[in-house]
Amino acid sequence: MLSFENDYSCGATPEILARLAEANTTTFPGYGSDDICASAKAKIREACGAPDADVWFLVGGTQTNQTIIDAITPPYAGVVAAATGHVNVHEAGAIEASGHKVLTLPHHDGKIDAKELNEYCATFYADANYEHMVFPGCVYVSQATEYGTLYTKAELEAIAEICHAYHMPLFVDGARLGYAITATGNDVTLEDLARIADVFYIGGTKVGALFGEAVVFTHHGDYSDTPKHFLTLIKQHGALLAKGWLLGLQFDTLFTDDLYMRIARHANEAADRIRATLRDKGYTLTFEAPTNQIFITLDEPTRERLEEHVRLGFMERADETHTVMRICTSWHTTDDQVEELLALL
Amino acid sequence: MLSFENDYSCGATPEILARLAEANTTTFPGYGSDDICASAKAKIREACGAPDADVWFLVGGTQTNQTIIDAITPPYAGVVAAATGHVNVHEAGAIEASGHKVLTLPHHDGKIDAKELNEYCATFYADANYEHMVFPGCVYVSQATEYGTLYTKAELEAIAEICHAYHMPLFVDGARLGYAITATGNDVTLEDLARIADVFYIGGTKVGALFGEAVVFTHHGDYSDTPKHFLTLIKQHGALLAKGWLLGLQFDTLFTDDLYMRIARHANEAADRIRATLRDKGYTLTFEAPTNQIFITLDEPTRERLEEHVRLGFMERADETHTVMRICTSWHTTDDQVEELLALL
Amino acid sequence: MLSFENDYSCGATPEILARLAEANTTTFPGYGSDDICASAKAKIREACGAPDADVWFLVGGTQTNQTIIDAITPPYAGVVAAATGHVNVHEAGAIEASGHKVLTLPHHDGKIDAKELNEYCATFYADANYEHMVFPGCVYVSQATEYGTLYTKAELEAIAEICHAYHMPLFVDGARLGYAITATGNDVTLEDLARIADVFYIGGTKVGALFGEAVVFTHHGDYSDTPKHFLTLIKQHGALLAKGWLLGLQFDTLFTDDLYMRIARHANEAADRIRATLRDKGYTLTFEAPTNQIFITLDEPTRERLEEHVRLGFMERADETHTVMRICTSWHTTDDQVEELLALL
Amino acid sequence: MLSFENDYSCGATPEILARLAEANTTTFPGYGSDDICASAKAKIREACGAPDADVWFLVGGTQTNQTIIDAITPPYAGVVAAATGHVNVHEAGAIEASGHKVLTLPHHDGKIDAKELNEYCATFYADANYEHMVFPGCVYVSQATEYGTLYTKAELEAIAEICHAYHMPLFVDGARLGYAITATGNDVTLEDLARIADVFYIGGTKVGALFGEAVVFTHHGDYSDTPKHFLTLIKQHGALLAKGWLLGLQFDTLFTDDLYMRIARHANEAADRIRATLRDKGYTLTFEAPTNQIFITLDEPTRERLEEHVRLGFMERADETHTVMRICTSWHTTDDQVEELLALL
Repeated sequence: MLSFENDYSCGATPEILARLAEANTTTFPGYGSDDICASAKAKIREACGAPDADVWFLVGGTQTNQTIIDAITPPYAGVVAAATGHVNVHEAGAIEASGHKVLTLPHHDGKIDAKELNEYCATFYADANYEHMVFPGCVYVSQATEYGTLYTKAELEAIAEICHAYHMPLFVDGARLGYAITATGNDVTLEDLARIADVFYIGGTKVGALFGEAVVFTHHGDYSDTPKHFLTLIKQHGALLAKGWLLGLQFDTLFTDDLYMRIARHANEAADRIRATLRDKGYTLTFEAPTNQIFITLDEPTRERLEEHVRLGFMERADETHTVMRICTSWHTTDDQVEELLALL
Repeated sequence: MLSFENDYSCGATPEILARLAEANTTTFPGYGSDDICASAKAKIREACGAPDADVWFLVGGTQTNQTIIDAITPPYAGVVAAATGHVNVHEAGAIEASGHKVLTLPHHDGKIDAKELNEYCATFYADANYEHMVFPGCVYVSQATEYGTLYTKAELEAIAEICHAYHMPLFVDGARLGYAITATGNDVTLEDLARIADVFYIGGTKVGALFGEAVVFTHHGDYSDTPKHFLTLIKQHGALLAKGWLLGLQFDTLFTDDLYMRIARHANEAADRIRATLRDKGYTLTFEAPTNQIFITLDEPTRERLEEHVRLGFMERADETHTVMRICTSWHTTDDQVEELLALL
Repeated sequence: MLSFENDYSCGATPEILARLAEANTTTFPGYGSDDICASAKAKIREACGAPDADVWFLVGGTQTNQTIIDAITPPYAGVVAAATGHVNVHEAGAIEASGHKVLTLPHHDGKIDAKELNEYCATFYADANYEHMVFPGCVYVSQATEYGTLYTKAELEAIAEICHAYHMPLFVDGARLGYAITATGNDVTLEDLARIADVFYIGGTKVGALFGEAVVFTHHGDYSDTPKHFLTLIKQHGALLAKGWLLGLQFDTLFTDDLYMRIARHANEAADRIRATLRDKGYTLTFEAPTNQIFITLDEPTRERLEEHVRLGFMERADETHTVMRICTSWHTTDDQVEELLALL
Repeated sequence: MLSFENDYSCGATPEILARLAEANTTTFPGYGSDDICASAKAKIREACGAPDADVWFLVGGTQTNQTIIDAITPPYAGVVAAATGHVNVHEAGAIEASGHKVLTLPHHDGKIDAKELNEYCATFYADANYEHMVFPGCVYVSQATEYGTLYTKAELEAIAEICHAYHMPLFVDGARLGYAITATGNDVTLEDLARIADVFYIGGTKVGALFGEAVVFTHHGDYSDTPKHFLTLIKQHGALLAKGWLLGLQFDTLFTDDLYMRIARHANEAADRIRATLRDKGYTLTFEAPTNQIFITLDEPTRERLEEHVRLGFMERADETHTVMRICTSWHTTDDQVEELLALL
C-alpha cells in the first residue's frame, strides 16, 4: 500500500549502503575515535562555517535530546519548550527521568515566541519565591517544528538574545533540519544556525541515514561550549555506539557533494507539489508549513476514502467529525508515489 | 509588626512544648519505632475511622510529596495535578528530580475537575502513540488547595472514581487539612477522606506542630496499600528523622482531645471574621475560599497603605495596577491581632 | 596493522549487508512493530526452546544493561554483580544514573559464586538495620564474563536458586553470548539459559551484527515476566530505535541457518589455535578462559615487541614489570590474521 | 532499662528547650531567612575562624550527605568513600538515588588513607578507558568515623592535598563532630577543619539538638564555594525546613558559651571512664577509638549477660562465637548511668 506515514520508514541513501559495504571489513577503533568520524566532523564544521565547533554523533532523537538537555541544564533548572515540543509530549518522560522539568510556553503553530519567553523569564525572576521554583535553564526549539513550521532567522535571533540575557543556552532539535534548510521560503542557513544556536543537531534518521544525529556545540559564546567530559555523559546515558564509525560514515557520506541537502530538497519538492494540489482541490491545510510534513484536517468520509489507498499519519482529533492527518514526504519518496497520491486526492 | 503572612511562622501549641519538655530525657528507640509513635498512629487511625490504615510521619510538605509520589507512581508514569498545584509550581522540581513528570490539568480556583481528568485520561489512551508518552500514574490534589478553596465530598468522590477507573491512586496533600476540615461549609470529614483517598497526609507544620506531616495509606482498595519497604524509600529520600518520636509526640498531642481540630477551627473563625469585614468594606476577594487563607486583589495605594502596618503574603501581580495578596490566619492568631487588622481595613 | 584489539571493530556478516540492501526501499512501520522483527523474535524463541519468551531489540550493551536493570530492580534495591562486572566498572555510572546501587561480590576469574551470593543475602537480611541499607534486588552476571570465562550449567543453576530464594530475577548479560555457547567445554546451551535465567540478552554488536542486542524475558517463573509498559521504559531511556526493523533484520539473519552460532564458533576456533600456540611458547595465560578473549600477562620487552606488529587490548598493569593484555578474536578474524599472529608469537 | 545504644535517643539540652519555649510565639520569616539563623551562622563562622564561610542548616545526616554530595559532584563523577562509610552502607542508596556512584576505598578502622586515595586516582586517570568509567568527583570522610576513630590533622591535610590535586572537594561528615573535636588526643580543631575541608557539617542531632546539621562551605579555595542556587537544591531534595528558625535557634544556643563543646566533652569523659574499666577488666576493644563510641568484641555468654541489664548497639557478628557491640555515650549520659554500667562490667 502507498505510504506517506512518516519519514523514517526506509533505510538509507544508496551512497551510504555502498560506502558501508566497502568499509565493512576494515578494522576501526571504537566509540567514534576513528578517521571517518574525524572526516565527517570536519565536513560538518565546514558546512556550518564554524571551524571551532565540536561535533558528536548519537543514534536517535530522544536519546540526543535527553543527553544534551541533561548535560547543559543546571541541576536547579529545567528546559523551556513549546507545550507541543517533542521533549514535552513524545519522549516518554525521558527529560524528567534525567531529573529536569520541562517548562512550557504556549505554541504558535509549534513555535515559541521570543516575547513570551522574555515575559516568562521576567515573571520568574520577579517572583519573590523564585528560589522555590524550577529555574529556566535552557531553551529547546525544533527546526522544523513538530508541525512542519519554521522559525525565521529574525525569530531565532530574538529567541537567542533572550536566552543569553537570562544565561541560557539555546538548543535546536534538528531531527528534520535538512527539510527545514531546503524548504521554500526558509531564510535560516546551516551557517546561520551555527551562529545563532548554542547547540543543535543535524538529523540523519529522518534524512537519508539508517540512523544517527550529529550534535554541534557551536563554541562561539558563553553558552555554547561542549559540556565537560561529554563522552562520559553520553556513555552514562546509554547513548555511546560501540561502532561509532557507522555514524561517522553516514554523515561523511551525507556531507559529501551536498547529498544531505539534495535529498532533503527532493522531499520538499514532492511536498510542494502535494500542497499545491491539496490547495487546488480545496483541502484544509491545518498549518502553513513549508517543509516535508503536511497536516490536513479531514472529514471522516474523506479520511476513510483516502486511508483505503494510502497510509497517513494520525495527528489528533480536530473535533467530533474531523481529524488532523499528516502526509509526510521523505528523501525516498518517488515521483510515482507522488503521482499516485495526487490521483487519489 | 503585625503579620498575617503565613501559617508557618510560629512554633507549636503549648501542649506540644509541655509534652516535649516532659519527654526530653526519656530514651527512645530511633526512626519512629517508639511507643509514642505507635500511640499517635492509633489515635490517627481512630480519628480516620480507618482501623486498617497505615500511618507514617515525615518532616515537611515537599519532602512528603516527593517521597509519596515517587513511591506510588510507576516508572513509566507521571502525576496528574492542577497547573497551580504545589508539586508543579513551588517545589523546585522535587518531583522531576525523582524522575516523574507532573502532568497538568487546568485549575478552577485551584481545583481540578473530574470530567476534565476523565477526558485527559480518555484522550491519552485513545492516542495511537500513547506508549511514547508519559502515562497518568497517580492524581495529586490539595485539600485545602493553594488558593484556600475546598473540594466537596461529591467532587472528591468523582475524582477518585476516575482515578480508579484508570488504575491510579488518589493522593491528597493535606498540608492544611485541619483548616479544610473545620471550615464553614466543608462537607468532607477526616473519615470521608480516609474512605475516598488512597493516601493523604495530615499537615502538622501549618497546624500546631513545630513540623511534621502524618501520612495515611488508607488500605481500603486496590490502590491504597503502603508501598513495599516504604521505610527504606523514606530513608533513601533523606526523609527519615532519627528522633522519630518527636513526630509521634506532636501528633499524639494534636490528636488528643481533638486539639488538632480545635486550633484549626480557631484559625478559620478568625478568617471568617476578617472575610466578613473585607466584604463589608468592599474589598475584592480573589477566590471564594472558606479556609484560613484569604486572597484579596488590591490596588497599589491600598496595598502600600496596608503593608505599612501588616505583613501580608505576595501571591502574584493581577494586572498593571493590582496585586493579589494573601491574608493568612493560623492556629496562633490572637483576637488582638484580628482586631488590629480589622481596624486597618 | 594487524589487530586483535577487540570484537567490535568491523561491520557485519555479509548476509546482513545483503539483506539490508534488499530491504532498503521497503516501507516499514516504526519502533519494531514490523514483520521482520516479528520473524526474528519467533526464531529466537525457537532457538531458545521458549515459546512463551518475550523478545525485544535494543542497540547496545550499556543501554541494554541500564534499561533492563532499572526496569527489573525495585526502587529500594540495587543490582548484585561481580566487582569486575561491566555494569560496575565500565558503564560510566549508567546504573547509578538511573538510581540503583551496584552491590558487589568478589569475583573469581570474573564470576560470582552462588555460596557467596547466598551468604551476602543472608547477612543482609540478618542485619538489624537492613531497612536502612540497599536491598539486593536482582543479580547480574555475564556469560561470557569480562575475562572470557564461563559459568557452568551447575553454577548458573545454583545462582538462580539463590536469586529466587531471595525474590530476585537473574539477569545474564550476553554481549558475547555466541562466543560462550560455542566455546570448547561449555555446557550451557541457549535452551539452558532460557530455562535458568529470568532475563538475558543475545549480543549482536560483538557477534556479527552492525549493532543490536536481543533481550529475552523468559516468562517461566515468578521473576521473568516483561516489566509493565516496557516499550515506554525503553523510550524513556533513549533506547528505542525509530527504524526498529534494522535490529529485527539483523537478528532474523543471524538466527537463520544457525549463522549466529557458526560465526561465533569460528572465532573460538581461531582463539583455540592461538591459545595452543601461546601455551607451547610458554606464555602466561592470565585466566583459564575458553572463549574468544585471551588474556596474557606480558613482560615489557615482549609487549613492546608484539605491539610493533599487532594491536592488542590493554587490560591492566599486573605489576611493575608486567602488563595484562587481551588478544580478541572475532567472527571476522581470518585464517591469515591468525597465521600472522602465530608467526609473531 | 539502662541504655547505651546510641547518641540520638534523647531530646535536646535544657538550654535549647528553654529558648524554644521563649521563642514559640514570635513570628519568624520562613526557610531560614530569620535573625536567629543569621546569629547562629555568625557564631559558627567565628567558632570556625572562617569569616568568609557560608553556613546552612539542614535537618538530618542522610539528607545532608545526599544534598551536599549531589550538589558538589559533577554529573560524570562519583564520591570516593571508605567501604564502611555511612554513605556507602547505611543510607538506603540515597547517593545513588540522586545519580552518583559511591567509589570505595579500603578502610583502616573506618578511615581512608591518603596514599591509597592518590593511587586510586592515579590508576583511574592512567586507564586507557577512564572516560568509560565513573570519575572520582569528591571525597567523603567522617570525623569521627563510623567506628569512632579520628583522622589526625596530618592525615586530613594529606587527603585534602590529594583531593585538590585531582580537582575534588573534600567533604567531611561531622554528624559526631563535637565528640571528635573534644576527644582526648584529638589534634583537629574546628578552625583546622574549616581550613582543611572544602565543606563539612557540624552535627546537632547527635550532639545536643533535637535535630539539625550545620553545613559549612569554607570558601577558602577553588573547591569550597557554595554551589549555585543551593537553597533551590536543598528544596529540590526535600530538605528545606519551613520553620528554619528552629534550626538556627538550636545552633545559636549550642554555639553560645561553648555549649556544643562542653556537652560533647562530657560524653567523651564518660566514654573514657568506661574504656578504662573495660581495659582493666580485660575486655577486647575492637578499635582504638577515643570518642563517644566504644566497640567491644564479646563472646556470647558475656553479651547475653550484659544485654539483660543494658541496651547496647549491634554492630556485626565477628565470628561464630563473638559479636561486635557498641557502647555509645552521649551529651545526656549521666554519672549514675556510667556507674551502673561500670558495675555491670
